[in-house]
Amino acid sequence: MKNENLYNYILGIADNSLILGQRLGELTGHGPSLETDIACTNMSLDLFGQVRSYYQYAAKLKGGDATEDTIAFLRKERDYVNVLLVEQPDRDFAYTMARQFLFDVYHLLFLQELQKSHDITLTAIAKKSIKEVSYHQRFSTDWIKRLGDGTTVSHDKMQEAIDSLWTYTDELFHQTAADKAMVAEGIGVDVTALKVKYYSLVNAVLEEATLKIPESKWFQKGGKKGIHTEHFGYILSNMQYMQLAYPNMEW
Amino acid sequence: MKNENLYNYILGIADNSLILGQRLGELTGHGPSLETDIACTNMSLDLFGQVRSYYQYAAKLKGGDATEDTIAFLRKERDYVNVLLVEQPDRDFAYTMARQFLFDVYHLLFLQELQKSHDITLTAIAKKSIKEVSYHQRFSTDWIKRLGDGTTVSHDKMQEAIDSLWTYTDELFHQTAADKAMVAEGIGVDVTALKVKYYSLVNAVLEEATLKIPESKWFQKGGKKGIHTEHFGYILSNMQYMQLAYPNMEW
Repeated sequence: MKNENLYNYILGIADNSLILGQRLGELTGHGPSLETDIACTNMSLDLFGQVRSYYQYAAKLKGGDATEDTIAFLRKERDYVNVLLVEQPDRDFAYTMARQFLFDVYHLLFLQELQKSHDITLTAIAKKSIKEVSYHQRFSTDWIKRLGDGTTVSHDKMQEAIDSLWTYTDELFHQTAADKAMVAEGIGVDVTALKVKYYSLVNAVLEEATLKIPESKWFQKGGKKGIHTEHFGYILSNMQYMQLAYPNMEW
Repeated sequence: MKNENLYNYILGIADNSLILGQRLGELTGHGPSLETDIACTNMSLDLFGQVRSYYQYAAKLKGGDATEDTIAFLRKERDYVNVLLVEQPDRDFAYTMARQFLFDVYHLLFLQELQKSHDITLTAIAKKSIKEVSYHQRFSTDWIKRLGDGTTVSHDKMQEAIDSLWTYTDELFHQTAADKAMVAEGIGVDVTALKVKYYSLVNAVLEEATLKIPESKWFQKGGKKGIHTEHFGYILSNMQYMQLAYPNMEW
């Protein structure tokens, strides 16, 4: 493939949204209230919409028989390069919102930079996505504050969720080979430059939510290299089932 | 297919054990104690062993490219004819043992009759399986008594499990078209004749376990006709993932 770095770079962006969208979609019909249920499903659909644009672009680069569907559904576990954060399970609503918040803050910072890419397709997707992701971030931030600064029970659950997911935040700022190549060409975002701003934004919200900022300096990584947590196989088997059982199906 | 009724009859037996084996296998490494963990995994392996014999026989009847693996792994949801009981989830250990017990009592009665079949392959499988299934029944019966006649908490959990799964017991005694055809040929077991004995055995254990015999006369059905509960799609997507993602794989 001619543009292999660009192709891999696009997967690095899109896989995060695909897997987070899948996680949010699992909750459809299981939300704690009708309003939050619909909000989570809508966020899931926003992410899937964004993902289609990325994968359509990736399929064009790849050529041959590749389509958005084959890229989304027919890769093997090691070929997905999403960060470990987004594949973590929906243990409870606090977890779901903490995962969302910790990703949204990154996602918005990332898209704001991606708007300035020299690649006009990526610029266009970023511009289109920013409005949606700003809404996601407002929604999840609200819930961090509401639950953190809520009852003792909601505070403790949110603190536990933040503590538990914190270990997956550092990976957001790791650079892959494709990242470096694309940054050099003025196409990719230098994620290392987002890190300070990210933690300062996150910490400000946690403080306002009366939550403790985790002190652990030990972080998990692997997703960006295709090394996933045990949860990932289950996500994939559910997500890929229809395409695998009914090859080339269309809705 | 020449022996279509026999083929369908075999699936009707084997699918129960396949899906129950899959459910038990999900618990591997998650048992409440090392001993029970190993016991559940062993029962799962017993069931898979039995299932292989049935599916090998079915594959021979079907001919063509059919193998035990294609029959076990490559059918679509509506083509699995297990009873709804065995697909119910492992909500907690009481549920797992209640499901096991309610199936084991049936399974043993069934195999005792299948031993008398005019089909020598089925007779042989039945004879081989009875020893294993007798052990399963002793194991699950012990746990019904231990938990039912245990602490208030264990009693309540077991009562809830029995109450909840009771609705799936009646289907065990429904006859399919293949059943009727095979009974007429002296090959199949007349399950309707097992019902009275089944409930008398089950009820005796429940009484000894100080559990209330559920009074509900409203029963679920559908599995024997391929109409499954919402849990089934998830079982299948996990169970079929490897074969679908890596076609024709062998260990």
